[in-house]
Amino acid sequence: MSKALEVFRAEELYAVGKPPIYEGERLREIAFPLGGIGTGCVSLSGRGELVDWEVFNRPNKGFALPYSFFILWARAEGQAPLTRVLQSPPAPPFSGQGGGSYRGFGFGVTRESGSGLPHMRAARFTGEFPFAEIEFQDPKLPLEVTLEAYSPFIPLNADDSGLPIAVLRFHLRNKGTPTVQVSLAGSLFNPIGYQGSGPLVNEHLGQNVNEYVDEGGVRGLSLTSRKYPAEAPVFGSLALTTAWADVACQPHWLRAGWFDALHEFWDAFSAHGTLPEHTYGPSEEGKSDVGTLALRATLQPGESVTLPFFLTWHFPHFTKYWQGAGQKCACSERPTWRNYYASQWRDALDVARYYAANEERLYRQTRDFHKALFASTLPPYVLDALSSQASILHSPTVLRLEDGTFYGFEGCHAESGCCEGSCTHVWNYAQAVAFLFPSLERSLRNADYTYNLREDGRMCFRIQLPLGSPLWEFHAAADGQLGGVLKVYRDWRLCGDDEWLRGLWPKVKKALEYAWTQWDPDQDGVIEGIQHNTYDIEFQGPNTMIGSFYLGALRAAEEMAQHLGDSEAMVKYCRIYESGRARMERELFNGEYYIQKYDPAKAPKYQYGEGCLSDQLIGQWLAHIVGLGYLFEPEHVRSALKAIFERNWRSDFWEHGNPQRIYALNDEQGLLLCSWPRGGRPAFPFPYSDEVWCGIEYQVASHLIYEGYVEEGLAIVKGVRARHDGYRRNPWNEFECGSHYARSLASWAVLTALSGYHFDLPHKTLGFAPRLRADDWCSFWSTNSGWGTYSQQLGEGQGEATLSVAYGALELETLLLGGIMRRVKGVVTLDGQELEATIWPRGGRLRVHLKRPVHLSEGQTLKVKLLW
Amino acid sequence: MSKALEVFRAEELYAVGKPPIYEGERLREIAFPLGGIGTGCVSLSGRGELVDWEVFNRPNKGFALPYSFFILWARAEGQAPLTRVLQSPPAPPFSGQGGGSYRGFGFGVTRESGSGLPHMRAARFTGEFPFAEIEFQDPKLPLEVTLEAYSPFIPLNADDSGLPIAVLRFHLRNKGTPTVQVSLAGSLFNPIGYQGSGPLVNEHLGQNVNEYVDEGGVRGLSLTSRKYPAEAPVFGSLALTTAWADVACQPHWLRAGWFDALHEFWDAFSAHGTLPEHTYGPSEEGKSDVGTLALRATLQPGESVTLPFFLTWHFPHFTKYWQGAGQKCACSERPTWRNYYASQWRDALDVARYYAANEERLYRQTRDFHKALFASTLPPYVLDALSSQASILHSPTVLRLEDGTFYGFEGCHAESGCCEGSCTHVWNYAQAVAFLFPSLERSLRNADYTYNLREDGRMCFRIQLPLGSPLWEFHAAADGQLGGVLKVYRDWRLCGDDEWLRGLWPKVKKALEYAWTQWDPDQDGVIEGIQHNTYDIEFQGPNTMIGSFYLGALRAAEEMAQHLGDSEAMVKYCRIYESGRARMERELFNGEYYIQKYDPAKAPKYQYGEGCLSDQLIGQWLAHIVGLGYLFEPEHVRSALKAIFERNWRSDFWEHGNPQRIYALNDEQGLLLCSWPRGGRPAFPFPYSDEVWCGIEYQVASHLIYEGYVEEGLAIVKGVRARHDGYRRNPWNEFECGSHYARSLASWAVLTALSGYHFDLPHKTLGFAPRLRADDWCSFWSTNSGWGTYSQQLGEGQGEATLSVAYGALELETLLLGGIMRRVKGVVTLDGQELEATIWPRGGRLRVHLKRPVHLSEGQTLKVKLLW
Repeated sequence: MSKALEVFRAEELYAVGKPPIYEGERLREIAFPLGGIGTGCVSLSGRGELVDWEVFNRPNKGFALPYSFFILWARAEGQAPLTRVLQSPPAPPFSGQGGGSYRGFGFGVTRESGSGLPHMRAARFTGEFPFAEIEFQDPKLPLEVTLEAYSPFIPLNADDSGLPIAVLRFHLRNKGTPTVQVSLAGSLFNPIGYQGSGPLVNEHLGQNVNEYVDEGGVRGLSLTSRKYPAEAPVFGSLALTTAWADVACQPHWLRAGWFDALHEFWDAFSAHGTLPEHTYGPSEEGKSDVGTLALRATLQPGESVTLPFFLTWHFPHFTKYWQGAGQKCACSERPTWRNYYASQWRDALDVARYYAANEERLYRQTRDFHKALFASTLPPYVLDALSSQASILHSPTVLRLEDGTFYGFEGCHAESGCCEGSCTHVWNYAQAVAFLFPSLERSLRNADYTYNLREDGRMCFRIQLPLGSPLWEFHAAADGQLGGVLKVYRDWRLCGDDEWLRGLWPKVKKALEYAWTQWDPDQDGVIEGIQHNTYDIEFQGPNTMIGSFYLGALRAAEEMAQHLGDSEAMVKYCRIYESGRARMERELFNGEYYIQKYDPAKAPKYQYGEGCLSDQLIGQWLAHIVGLGYLFEPEHVRSALKAIFERNWRSDFWEHGNPQRIYALNDEQGLLLCSWPRGGRPAFPFPYSDEVWCGIEYQVASHLIYEGYVEEGLAIVKGVRARHDGYRRNPWNEFECGSHYARSLASWAVLTALSGYHFDLPHKTLGFAPRLRADDWCSFWSTNSGWGTYSQQLGEGQGEATLSVAYGALELETLLLGGIMRRVKGVVTLDGQELEATIWPRGGRLRVHLKRPVHLSEGQTLKVKLLW
Repeated sequence: MSKALEVFRAEELYAVGKPPIYEGERLREIAFPLGGIGTGCVSLSGRGELVDWEVFNRPNKGFALPYSFFILWARAEGQAPLTRVLQSPPAPPFSGQGGGSYRGFGFGVTRESGSGLPHMRAARFTGEFPFAEIEFQDPKLPLEVTLEAYSPFIPLNADDSGLPIAVLRFHLRNKGTPTVQVSLAGSLFNPIGYQGSGPLVNEHLGQNVNEYVDEGGVRGLSLTSRKYPAEAPVFGSLALTTAWADVACQPHWLRAGWFDALHEFWDAFSAHGTLPEHTYGPSEEGKSDVGTLALRATLQPGESVTLPFFLTWHFPHFTKYWQGAGQKCACSERPTWRNYYASQWRDALDVARYYAANEERLYRQTRDFHKALFASTLPPYVLDALSSQASILHSPTVLRLEDGTFYGFEGCHAESGCCEGSCTHVWNYAQAVAFLFPSLERSLRNADYTYNLREDGRMCFRIQLPLGSPLWEFHAAADGQLGGVLKVYRDWRLCGDDEWLRGLWPKVKKALEYAWTQWDPDQDGVIEGIQHNTYDIEFQGPNTMIGSFYLGALRAAEEMAQHLGDSEAMVKYCRIYESGRARMERELFNGEYYIQKYDPAKAPKYQYGEGCLSDQLIGQWLAHIVGLGYLFEPEHVRSALKAIFERNWRSDFWEHGNPQRIYALNDEQGLLLCSWPRGGRPAFPFPYSDEVWCGIEYQVASHLIYEGYVEEGLAIVKGVRARHDGYRRNPWNEFECGSHYARSLASWAVLTALSGYHFDLPHKTLGFAPRLRADDWCSFWSTNSGWGTYSQQLGEGQGEATLSVAYGALELETLLLGGIMRRVKGVVTLDGQELEATIWPRGGRLRVHLKRPVHLSEGQTLKVKLLW
């Protein structure tokens, strides 16, 4: 039996189905990010709390706004009213957490989230990013209550996917026979003045203004402050609004001591569903207020209603808070700039009005994406791996700079980005941005080649903010710098924009050829010098981890040179590639996998030598994704991938002695970064070698699938997601060196690998070669111009392939179909209209060539009917 | 069916048995304090980790010393060795916790506790304070492994119960057939220089010295520092030693970067059970070292061995860290003094030597106490309530000042005491110290009347440190001040020391009579003025909460006045008592329970009025404990107690709307501080009214038992302990306004109530009247001079009562036996020797009067055989 099947039943690996429903203990760790790309976010917990308020321009795990919760009052005719905080009950432990004065550990469950009030009795959470849904259960309540939460996420439309909003749609249904009156109250604390991390400090509050507003199609609470001028770093606004007409609003809770404010709120609301009135001016120094917006409705038996809340924020100024953070430099000395979103909306209310005005479209297009993705026949945990990690784009790992440039940390410390600069070697692994928001991905390339490249070709691997700041003084990262060439090639193939390519080309060449001064001075195609890399140390001597990046870069550059007519470069890159490939095959393949040869006298500590490195063919993986094919001998590649799986994937960690960081343990499954099955482990192997990184697991899993080891690849993916089960870890937060770690965006390659996705937009060509369930397949595709689904059904003597455009458009001349190797007859139609085409097998795929390229518009479907 | 039996089956309430075994999820919250009275402590987690290192003179929840864990290497002859961290596996969540740089949330399970190394597969934890035991389980290991952890705790011997030590005895048994070689390594980081709270800061480290020592019967690691002079606040030492002969010691782990130190340790130890050698001087500035002590043994099949570790500490200087804490005053301006323990031992090694030299006695006497307590026929959750809360005495809630005076915070913030000054109103509830360490309790009285009493009789209720500091400017606490009189009476009755009483008497009178200037100026026995109290607000007008303290104080004072021949005072106190009782019965009993009458025009916010207050008869409770009998009309008292249970005890909290602090929730049981079953709830009732406090629950539970409502009292106790089940909360940390909250020391009254314990040492009289299982009873008793067990068996026509002295001695003239109301014949023997005695029923008890008082020595037993 295969090792994969020793751990997972075939049915578990292959069955189609829905992503998991989280209940009970599995709700514990859930925090589902709500927000836009580059706006920060607030997360929805498994219980229904709003947690991790990271809207203040930096990560801020564990921070919650006090008293900012939703509570439902319902009175069935003739019965006593019931009131429920719309959360499942607080879960143990109940001792309280953390420090503080008269709070924290030893003071019980925090009362500021309404924990002391009656709750719904249970929650069932489903998360299919960008949508989260919680079905609340309560035996006494005469209503069915479901919360649908999301933020607009529309691939290719980065701006509408970058709204600083969390939309909370409460669906209520009267399940009983009496008429039910409801009042659904959302409360929000006015935190304006908050510094973005650490506890709320009184001295930052004061002159906070809570107002009821009703204009531009929305009504509700506007929270601002008069204490800070518009240019102050903490300046900003929050709003809790609705498009619902029947509302009540209490801009201020009672200003009083002890527990009186919540006391008064609870007494009135629980008795009558009403909100006490208080007329106050701006808050006193050191204080602020909670306000409440209540949506009211009457439901006849069986009637349903959707009560929507729009939580919007607008904190326009981004401060480079990590500048001089170690030296305790004054905040005022830190550079600031405006968030891209701040250039689009004036304040939080403006965002709400924009959303309300476009709600139908934004919701529909986000749903369309969700439908297109989840229509797939992929196993549910694969869909989960794809969709959940796309949420990184709504997390504080991601910024958009003033000019719209996409920028990423690697991940997030609890209270700051970790680490800065769109780190090229970490973002090498990430694929989702390139496929879902190609223009954002290209903005990364543009910034990289504009701001990180030195005259001699050496590149910084961390871009310094604000853009144009002096370059970072440190090693170049060999993997990051060479990976960049492959990424340019990928991004050009996804958009077909020759002008863009032409503009970058001289810089790309310079960056590639820097290898000849530093890493491969003898230009034999084998990297030998000191190679800083993603393990934060320097490899020395020939190895295929950096070597495969180098070969891939040479091949990609050769292709681009050819396209641009730079034949001198083309020939030279080709020659060096061939030489390097031959020598690496000769010297580094040990009969099972590829090793490193280093010189103990010259090498720094921390090499891998004879080890079986999970990243040993990462450049080959990228080459597959971007369509370059094999860089190395295919049989060796397959052997090495099999070895990585067999040697490094652990079915449990009970006997694993790991002095390093701990990302998989006990009965979990995971892929080690390296092992030494044939001995030769250095006394001090490279740091991280004993660890398990999700991003590398996706890299290896998708590469295994590219090599035909589908079962092995799926087992790795399933292992990763099983570790993120809501109880052990948050399904929407795969971390490594911090939360929402960008490397996990590699999960998107599992889709390209399983669907055998081929994109060559310069030649108006798309292709699919499903590696699983080829007779009944459906999956998502995307390019720079549109996205949709591809499906195929293969039966006895006939088959059908269908390409639909759900969003945008597609210029198509050639469609490559994999897994259909015979000679066939075929008919191609566009929305039923036949198109002239020739169909023949070539290179392992069926080539469907249209006589005239077609423009597929949104909603259109191209069908290929095949007979054999 | 009674309400108690609606929640708990009779069997659950009444069955005798063992306290719980904690496994799985119930291990999560366990932290069992190890340390002495007034020494701080380190806690043993359910998994076997040393957590919450609070040995640095302040609370410090969540702080752990890095790499300070125990790990076992075992090689069965002819087999590969196995190595196990002696902890059960880390439990979810696995995302990491808290903030920090490259650590905390988003960085995985902390590696510093050895979490990445192979662990034992499971743990079973039992805690019968002062002993904790963990049975570790692992299917592969050829050994049975049990950890027995304790610190000496010997009632009446406060000094030996005040050793700064945690003793960790690992019991190993070879359960297989091959011979097994073992090496058990304990590691300890040298933290000297640490400030006592917050994270370890590098700048405080440096010049740390780790040495191997072997002298005075112990050998092992001594950890000191040359950076700080002996008078520096952070000066001190730690030691990890053993009396075991066959040891290896590695004072320093490798000094190197990345993960190398743990890497090298693990590689060597897991391969051979050995420790690499490094010879280093004191640590560099900003750094410190881990050291390891390994105990070695060879076990033949079936052979057992006990490998003991002594973890000792010595941080002599206590800083009043809360002085000016809000004003960020410089540490150097804060007063410091020496801990009492520092006057007894020179350093941590000295403590270890003392322990080793006295180990047999200290262990035996601690075991004797454990046996005497757990020999009881009390239900297991009652034993658990008694023993677990005694652990407060080993927690950082408790100090001993330089002169030995006992001092208590109310409880503990995560990182500081909360709140200061042996707060008289909170410590009113505490009973365990009075019965287990009466000399410490008397030192509280001495300090209170020496330092808190003003010339006019007004008392501070928080003593200011250092002793002799200016008095605190705030209200007197009516409950605290009046309760003091009852406590003097109790403490005198427990010791019979007339000189002590005589010394305090003028001050006690002054304190009592202060009531006539402030609270009862018309001396009618009814308190009417502004009454600050334990709810941190001021009651106004007549009420029995303060009123019962007043009546109890008057009665206690009357008795003491009589004994001391102060007849003028005696007569006056008696008159006022009678007047007050009559008026309160008339005006405050509403037919069901006692209420408060306040004047809305004069009263501050936050009264209770018509409410059913759980503390409404707290003075009556104290009167029962100390042997004063009824202060109020017995039938009214019983009605009120029943009402408190019926009205305020909740079988769940699903519909409880509590805007205050949250100490019981969801499906838990608990007693509200107040409810308003007949209406009349003030718009803003007194703070805490919606809360559940363990200390008040014990007060009411034991009072219910005194009134004969045994089932109800037991149900409350069972409810408290069910909330502290290891999963929801730590069984060894009942918190209220902070951890290890002193009010829970009220649990000891459940023992005095159930055993009907009567003590009158001035008259050499003890008495028992078991209220449960009177025909087959055994329980613990204690006085100022000795402790032991009392048991009775009653059968057909005969019975036997046995009083044994397990520690100390007892002068006895009269023994009162309850539950035996008939005329009997009896024979009294002392260790088999008949004593002359008369036996007759009086006042509901059988009176056994010895013609000549006897001196019962340690180990002696007095028996009374009865025939009827």
